[in-house]
Amino acid sequence: MSGTKDLGLLFDPRSVVLVGASDRAGSIGGYALQNITEHSDFTGELYLVNPRRTGIGGRTCWPSVAALPTTPDLAMLAVPAPDVLPALQECAARGVRFAIVFTSGFGETGEEGKALEAQMREIVAQSGMRIYGPNCPGLTNVNRRLGLTFSPAFKLDLLAGPIGIATQGGGLGRCLLQAMQRGIGVGVWTSAGNEVDLEVSDFIHHMAGVTGIEVIATLLEGVRDGPRFLQAVRHAAQQRKPVVALKIGRSEYGRRAAQSHTASIAGSAEVNSAVMRQMGVIEVDDIDELIDTAALLARARPGPAEKIAVFCSSGGTAALSADMIGSAGLELAEFHNKTRTELAALLPGFASATNPVDTTGEIMRDPEAMAATLRAVVNDPAVGLVLYPIPLEYGPVTRVVAESVVRVQRETSKPIVAVWMSDRLGAGYDVLVDGGLMPFRSVGKAVKAIARWVAYGQWRLRADATAVPEPLQLSAPRGLALPDVSTEPLAKAWLAGHGIPMPAHRLTRTLAEAQEAAAAMGWPVVAKVASADVLHKSDAGGVAVGLRDASELAKAWERIHHSVAAAVPNARIQGLLIERMAPPGGVETLVGVHQDECFGPVLSVGLGGIHVEVLKDVSRRLLPIHLDDARDMLRELRGHAILRGVRGQPPRDTESLARTLVAVSDLVTAHHGAIAELEINPLWVGAQGQGVLALDALAIPSGDHAT
Amino acid sequence: MSGTKDLGLLFDPRSVVLVGASDRAGSIGGYALQNITEHSDFTGELYLVNPRRTGIGGRTCWPSVAALPTTPDLAMLAVPAPDVLPALQECAARGVRFAIVFTSGFGETGEEGKALEAQMREIVAQSGMRIYGPNCPGLTNVNRRLGLTFSPAFKLDLLAGPIGIATQGGGLGRCLLQAMQRGIGVGVWTSAGNEVDLEVSDFIHHMAGVTGIEVIATLLEGVRDGPRFLQAVRHAAQQRKPVVALKIGRSEYGRRAAQSHTASIAGSAEVNSAVMRQMGVIEVDDIDELIDTAALLARARPGPAEKIAVFCSSGGTAALSADMIGSAGLELAEFHNKTRTELAALLPGFASATNPVDTTGEIMRDPEAMAATLRAVVNDPAVGLVLYPIPLEYGPVTRVVAESVVRVQRETSKPIVAVWMSDRLGAGYDVLVDGGLMPFRSVGKAVKAIARWVAYGQWRLRADATAVPEPLQLSAPRGLALPDVSTEPLAKAWLAGHGIPMPAHRLTRTLAEAQEAAAAMGWPVVAKVASADVLHKSDAGGVAVGLRDASELAKAWERIHHSVAAAVPNARIQGLLIERMAPPGGVETLVGVHQDECFGPVLSVGLGGIHVEVLKDVSRRLLPIHLDDARDMLRELRGHAILRGVRGQPPRDTESLARTLVAVSDLVTAHHGAIAELEINPLWVGAQGQGVLALDALAIPSGDHAT
Repeated sequence: MSGTKDLGLLFDPRSVVLVGASDRAGSIGGYALQNITEHSDFTGELYLVNPRRTGIGGRTCWPSVAALPTTPDLAMLAVPAPDVLPALQECAARGVRFAIVFTSGFGETGEEGKALEAQMREIVAQSGMRIYGPNCPGLTNVNRRLGLTFSPAFKLDLLAGPIGIATQGGGLGRCLLQAMQRGIGVGVWTSAGNEVDLEVSDFIHHMAGVTGIEVIATLLEGVRDGPRFLQAVRHAAQQRKPVVALKIGRSEYGRRAAQSHTASIAGSAEVNSAVMRQMGVIEVDDIDELIDTAALLARARPGPAEKIAVFCSSGGTAALSADMIGSAGLELAEFHNKTRTELAALLPGFASATNPVDTTGEIMRDPEAMAATLRAVVNDPAVGLVLYPIPLEYGPVTRVVAESVVRVQRETSKPIVAVWMSDRLGAGYDVLVDGGLMPFRSVGKAVKAIARWVAYGQWRLRADATAVPEPLQLSAPRGLALPDVSTEPLAKAWLAGHGIPMPAHRLTRTLAEAQEAAAAMGWPVVAKVASADVLHKSDAGGVAVGLRDASELAKAWERIHHSVAAAVPNARIQGLLIERMAPPGGVETLVGVHQDECFGPVLSVGLGGIHVEVLKDVSRRLLPIHLDDARDMLRELRGHAILRGVRGQPPRDTESLARTLVAVSDLVTAHHGAIAELEINPLWVGAQGQGVLALDALAIPSGDHAT
Repeated sequence: MSGTKDLGLLFDPRSVVLVGASDRAGSIGGYALQNITEHSDFTGELYLVNPRRTGIGGRTCWPSVAALPTTPDLAMLAVPAPDVLPALQECAARGVRFAIVFTSGFGETGEEGKALEAQMREIVAQSGMRIYGPNCPGLTNVNRRLGLTFSPAFKLDLLAGPIGIATQGGGLGRCLLQAMQRGIGVGVWTSAGNEVDLEVSDFIHHMAGVTGIEVIATLLEGVRDGPRFLQAVRHAAQQRKPVVALKIGRSEYGRRAAQSHTASIAGSAEVNSAVMRQMGVIEVDDIDELIDTAALLARARPGPAEKIAVFCSSGGTAALSADMIGSAGLELAEFHNKTRTELAALLPGFASATNPVDTTGEIMRDPEAMAATLRAVVNDPAVGLVLYPIPLEYGPVTRVVAESVVRVQRETSKPIVAVWMSDRLGAGYDVLVDGGLMPFRSVGKAVKAIARWVAYGQWRLRADATAVPEPLQLSAPRGLALPDVSTEPLAKAWLAGHGIPMPAHRLTRTLAEAQEAAAAMGWPVVAKVASADVLHKSDAGGVAVGLRDASELAKAWERIHHSVAAAVPNARIQGLLIERMAPPGGVETLVGVHQDECFGPVLSVGLGGIHVEVLKDVSRRLLPIHLDDARDMLRELRGHAILRGVRGQPPRDTESLARTLVAVSDLVTAHHGAIAELEINPLWVGAQGQGVLALDALAIPSGDHAT
């Protein structure tokens, strides 16, 4: 990542050269020329380069970039694949700042193409010129009405708006742009294809600073560079611009397909999702949800605790919508008395004047009554958003309905989310689109978008209170080296030194020493073999629990030495670790840190037993975390009720558990870069006030720190 | 439910009378008249009744139904609410078989209206005439081109087809009908409003027998009559006609809204879903999913193990679709070598010739190559269905694509599921619609429908092997009365007699007897108080576990009597139940039977501890069940891995557990109607070969059988 970091002149260049300009119908150079000359409002300098022509359409053609009278900010390359590298070299030599390479036939075709891409990166590294592409449709800056693209569809999708879109491939990006048909305006779209240099993260970062872009929608097949992505979304969060993301690669099929399509790292779906949630990136499940959610956030920003009103003229639809609101975990607003009174006066007696509102069909033909009823609902102080499903096209009747919706929406900043449920469009649909309502097409999809909108408001509240987290990978200098942690006693000594609570324990070399230690700490005790050569202590017969007196300990001493000698013949045994048994009745948890290949150190916590292994009930965060994050992590567990205390059990000491998670976070931060893996398993959690105890622990140093 | 059961003459009457015929613009009677005379192909006898007119539009008006020259099969009532009851009485007296009541202003308006509805039911009971409505748009028989409805939209929605739709309200039903815009044909639609007599279940039952209807889609706000619903869907299953259902009432909001809209029983969402799954009813989550899933089933029936191919010309879209296929738990087909060879020959080198197929955009302009490639995929023997997402509208290019899809679909019975992802429609979209492809509008919704289609094939295989189950509520005569089961020893004796395995146990009256019993069965033992007055034995201090010898038992004997006397002062104690302890290391499960208010006896099974209470991990079935059902129930548990044996534990004796579930089913069948509730908790499950043991049991007789 060298060269110019400010992408302003890529999005909005003062001068452009089109290398490979053409007037041949259907050619890439021809389309690109038409887009910038006929369909754009470009007022800067445009140079054409084509050594085989002297002019095209009345414009001069220059033989080379070197021959141009001035140095353009941006070069667009529409030349055959073999000519791309020389052209890039020429641009770099001339001092061009940005080059968009439309041409395909590189990394996506195999090893040879990848080698050519490596040479492109070499040019970037040496010259500082930034490359966009290759194998891409180019960049579309709708808000400036500027098409730096060869796409013949450019001229069709020109509804400006507050959404910035950053994709890798082109097909799905154009799919998103065609939501303009529903009145969803898009300000800029980048689709950087093979991303030899500039990648999705760079565009997210840039768009966060672009005036007129309020929400960023991104489609990720993979994340090439974790820190760059983290930096970008953190910057967007700081600029208060929500990022909505669809990340392919949740299933094995998707991971494989995305990898073969873009050769980027798919990564662990669980970690990806956890990272996005933590950074305030709104993850969606489908391409239509991406644009719908972005559009809703562009219309209005949620407060920290938004409640919903359902407004409808069909009883069945009202019931269905309320049902979905409930299933999504959203809250229906409780109407103020004033609202109820107003509704009762406006609606027929058998209509439902509570939330969900069912006006019944009776008043649909009366525009004034429709508007007044809707206005009463939207103005209720408890209502943050109105969901307005329209089940069917009904000619003039639905047109009047739509007009009343548009009218009331103009009076308020609270979003009215209209859903045009029918496959039959009509005048009412057009009224909604033209009125800026951006109608959804299914209740379920609308409710999903609303749920994400509400959740973003909650996240924003937290982010405003504690600042957007800065992941360790971005900020922390390499930390302290690890001490020797090759045995449990060593690992525990190190952890205890960093504030992780432990039961009383002592490494003993003789039976007498062990018996004395046990008597001092109090029976019952556990005895465990201490040896760097025995990784799986239990499997090797190296553990004895519940030893109640000196004679039981003596037997165990004998048995452990015997078993371990049989299981791991040449193990060097340092002695036995004698440890006070945790009190009965605790809950076991598992706390771990591992290095994600993309995003760096990830903290995981789950309940012991089957919860992690079988039910995959794990909560994750990038480090470092605050105490509030730690509390959130515990609340996110499906089995959280177990910590709260179920079936007559007392509530557990979740505060101590949360503090211990923070202690682990601090510890990893202090040793940043030195720990490959850390696991406290089990971490015993007592009843409230009893604290927690690390019963076993394992730390693996990073390869480069390993002894 | 008295009167005519065959609804043939309601759907296809030989003669009809319209009571309240009118030529007033915008009147119900006027629309109904237009629909049957101008927009229907009705060739039977049509009578008009209106005492204030002698003729309308050249047709005679009769003063009353009584005055008609012959008795019509069907009466349509378009008269004001106060005139409805007299008109119904007149029709019934005349011997009319069916009456459709359009008029509103009855049950939906309050108590007075409900009283009028009770009188309508009285007419049904006394005359046998069946009533459809009131407060409904009527019945639409598209396949006969017959509108027995006042809906002015009747004439717009006349695309015949194989789907039967049964709804309660009208708005969502019309929404479904408007899917005709996507080429989805609907044969009949019933929307019986307040359902005073005929209800959704009756229409499902009838449609299952109608030639030309292949799939039934139903929208349920509530089920009024559980057995009638069960009978209907069982009949449909026997006729091999899939039923797709959207049931409102999954969340508390939905339950309340549906109840206030239709006054039907919402029931328990968990039981509803379990019943549907068991009876082969395909439950969906949204209204668009209802029609989409029905349309897919109407296009092709799934085999028992269908695998999917993804075919696409955009790499990102291919990856996204494959990802969703994987996340939905579906399988991508593994292509045959022949297919791979064909694809390799047809596609450019960098295209993906494996599944998912990414043809790349290159060949999209070549209709022959497009068709040949798609044909190669669809003809692969491993492929059961092709998902073909089209991400954007691209004018002539997407038209050619669509034409190739339509062409190849005509050559094969395997469904090609096209998804038109863009909000911009175009010529390609129209080609798909006209070609019968019924394009989906989002990949996610298409994948959901495909997953349901595949699951239906799996269910069908089972139903064909073991016959569609007949729920107890439909078939079983009232069974044996319960014996006295008021204490644990009595309940256990009864269960043991019905083949439920128990640990050795004996009711003892003296300590000596208890000690003798324990010695005979082998230590350790459990001692539990036996008293009909002590319901919660543990809470009353009435249980002692792990008693290892006679002296421990003696102490426990004393302690239990003491504690129980203190906790339940006047309890009549019959003695202590002495029971052999279950071997260590078993898994505890919970087996219960309760009476669902709608569907009768429901069997539940879950794992003990937090699984049922906290994680709500329960599998349910209507009784009776077969051994295969029992095995399925265990497999359905999210925590099933625990039974298979995790974390070094041996596999559990799931076969004994399954056999015990069947024994419980047999037991409840034998005592049908006599058991309000039965709970075996815990049911201990040993390792494979160790069997199961009912450690505690509770049975509550039904009110009318209680002693």
